[in-house]
Amino acid sequence: MLKRTSEYLKALGLTGPTVIIDETGARANINAMADKARRSHVAFRPHFKTHQSPVIGRWFTDEGVDRITVSSVRMAEQFAECGWTDITIAFLLNPLELPRVRNLAGYLDRRGGRLGLTVDSVTAARMASGLDAPVAVWLKVDTGYGRTGIRWDDHQKLQAVLEQCRGTTVAAGLLTHSGHSYEVRGTGRITAIYDETIARMNTARESCTHPDLALSFGDTPCCSVVDDLSACDEIRPGNFVFYDLMQLQIGSCTEAQLAAAAVCPVVGIYPERNQVVLHGGAVHLSTESLQLEDGRKIYGQLGTLEFGESNHEGDLGPAGLGQVLDKATLVLLSQEHGVLECAPDSFSQLLGDLEIGDLVVVWPVHSCLMCDLQRDLSILP
Amino acid sequence: MLKRTSEYLKALGLTGPTVIIDETGARANINAMADKARRSHVAFRPHFKTHQSPVIGRWFTDEGVDRITVSSVRMAEQFAECGWTDITIAFLLNPLELPRVRNLAGYLDRRGGRLGLTVDSVTAARMASGLDAPVAVWLKVDTGYGRTGIRWDDHQKLQAVLEQCRGTTVAAGLLTHSGHSYEVRGTGRITAIYDETIARMNTARESCTHPDLALSFGDTPCCSVVDDLSACDEIRPGNFVFYDLMQLQIGSCTEAQLAAAAVCPVVGIYPERNQVVLHGGAVHLSTESLQLEDGRKIYGQLGTLEFGESNHEGDLGPAGLGQVLDKATLVLLSQEHGVLECAPDSFSQLLGDLEIGDLVVVWPVHSCLMCDLQRDLSILP
Repeated sequence: MLKRTSEYLKALGLTGPTVIIDETGARANINAMADKARRSHVAFRPHFKTHQSPVIGRWFTDEGVDRITVSSVRMAEQFAECGWTDITIAFLLNPLELPRVRNLAGYLDRRGGRLGLTVDSVTAARMASGLDAPVAVWLKVDTGYGRTGIRWDDHQKLQAVLEQCRGTTVAAGLLTHSGHSYEVRGTGRITAIYDETIARMNTARESCTHPDLALSFGDTPCCSVVDDLSACDEIRPGNFVFYDLMQLQIGSCTEAQLAAAAVCPVVGIYPERNQVVLHGGAVHLSTESLQLEDGRKIYGQLGTLEFGESNHEGDLGPAGLGQVLDKATLVLLSQEHGVLECAPDSFSQLLGDLEIGDLVVVWPVHSCLMCDLQRDLSILP
Repeated sequence: MLKRTSEYLKALGLTGPTVIIDETGARANINAMADKARRSHVAFRPHFKTHQSPVIGRWFTDEGVDRITVSSVRMAEQFAECGWTDITIAFLLNPLELPRVRNLAGYLDRRGGRLGLTVDSVTAARMASGLDAPVAVWLKVDTGYGRTGIRWDDHQKLQAVLEQCRGTTVAAGLLTHSGHSYEVRGTGRITAIYDETIARMNTARESCTHPDLALSFGDTPCCSVVDDLSACDEIRPGNFVFYDLMQLQIGSCTEAQLAAAAVCPVVGIYPERNQVVLHGGAVHLSTESLQLEDGRKIYGQLGTLEFGESNHEGDLGPAGLGQVLDKATLVLLSQEHGVLECAPDSFSQLLGDLEIGDLVVVWPVHSCLMCDLQRDLSILP
């Protein structure tokens, strides 16, 4: 299967490290999340930092998505250029970017849309309310992750920041990111984080003088695992469009849902140490790693393509991303190199046929970082 | 000092995450290495993957450098466009890139230069010798790092690969990278790796029928620490141009030699947990980490600028990169966020004056990856 995968990828004209996207898989992930949002009667504002792609953005449009989340002013500008008009920057307002934020807010307002900003201080809220065009201001609430935000039980600060949201500013609601869901494993624990987060968001909202504040929530593990999300008003997951090995380990997805991988050329073969070396390193996959149950630290796992029944060998019909071949893992990454290793007893069967210049599929640990590093995404036909 | 640093960086017009380069420091590092190469009578072929910058490339030209190393065909093409004609790609030849390699070899040959290729297999050596234009072929030798290369004591394979180097191909020599020097600490152990590497390279050369093969060697720790490099013919260090926290911990450089840092805006302030949050995350610094002696894992440390005596407050005279303020470290990185933390007793004195929108200097763990992520380097005036 590795040889057939390689031949197919070569026939596509790929020669070096490339990100490939399984459109069918990604569209299914988008559909499943959009559907869950509809069933839960919550707004769906997907985070576009994962793919950062105008083309993949249109797959969301096809599911009726008309509002998005981004993580920087630059990314907001890029998607505004693509025609998106309802954009939340779920990253704390940087006062030095205020001139660009002002321009963008006016641009979106003139198109009938709205820029959303995120603040967790009186200073930033005051700046946001001093803009000419109307903006939606989200108060970032820390519900336990401990990165940014006002603690859910700091009523005084929540109130003080809310009071700054006036003038052309609309206080849109309370926004949180439960990033600590990435630290747990299994649906039970993820659900517990969701329940705790919602309880804390409600505590925060009850202490505010604006009882109609919306609750915006959004990490991929919670949004994937919890069936009924109706306790919040809006969800903002991002990674779910492709998922990755980390989400697989967390328990947010199945192997069949993985929809993005790296294609890497084989440049060295070392049967004596059960390794092949790939052109595919830290600048392609990031140095994000995962600890397996046996204690080993890995940077990726081998994958394959899957071909339709009507798809004959040598044929360029449609193909999708296939299995995780977890017997072969990336055990070392440097700037440009990745070392793929498997157990001695499976080398000849699994990797034995590979030659220099073959292309292999590698599942990444973290698809967001891989796509940020390699902006040109290739969509499988 | 942090406030003055911030005011200076704002006056330069910086608003978001940016890499800044201390030209005086980088030029001193280049001069020191070029000087050592001259004293050792070895060729100096610096690795340009660290900076990937045409401007910084000219600082090497000023030191008499006329040959360079890169880690990909793309990088070789970019520097060929800048006028460099003697370029070694110190990354194993990828057969799928052969058409581009052929073009580049012809281009450099017509300009009186030479493309260098790296191989460790009969297959790749045969491909290299089938090119139209002359190329220099380097045999990659594994002297103990265990990533790529023919083992130094595998005489049979060395000989077999060498035999393929004929026709328009020049067998230039044996090339190694002692990347395991990154795993040790202190000059004694680094020197031991150098000595072992040279001994193994000599063993490899003695077993070849071409006794005039050159020895090319080149990791930053060994090239920085060893005084007399005359046992090899060519050195290829790269990271030394900027160094970083990893090299400081290894013992390859002093604090005064650090010459590249990230500028990051402060977006959140949390005195209750002795933290400030920066716009500066995995997509700016990479997730490369360092383990401190006390076991803590860090992603960067706080820095400052240093101003000349004639440089008055508010004045835009020259500034350089200053100290490592190791009391404040980056303890958590996500895609866009960096969490800077210091001990409770130093927060108010060290970070207490910082406001949202201030700019701080962060020393990276690995300058090569930081520069690859943020290609636009700002050179301090």
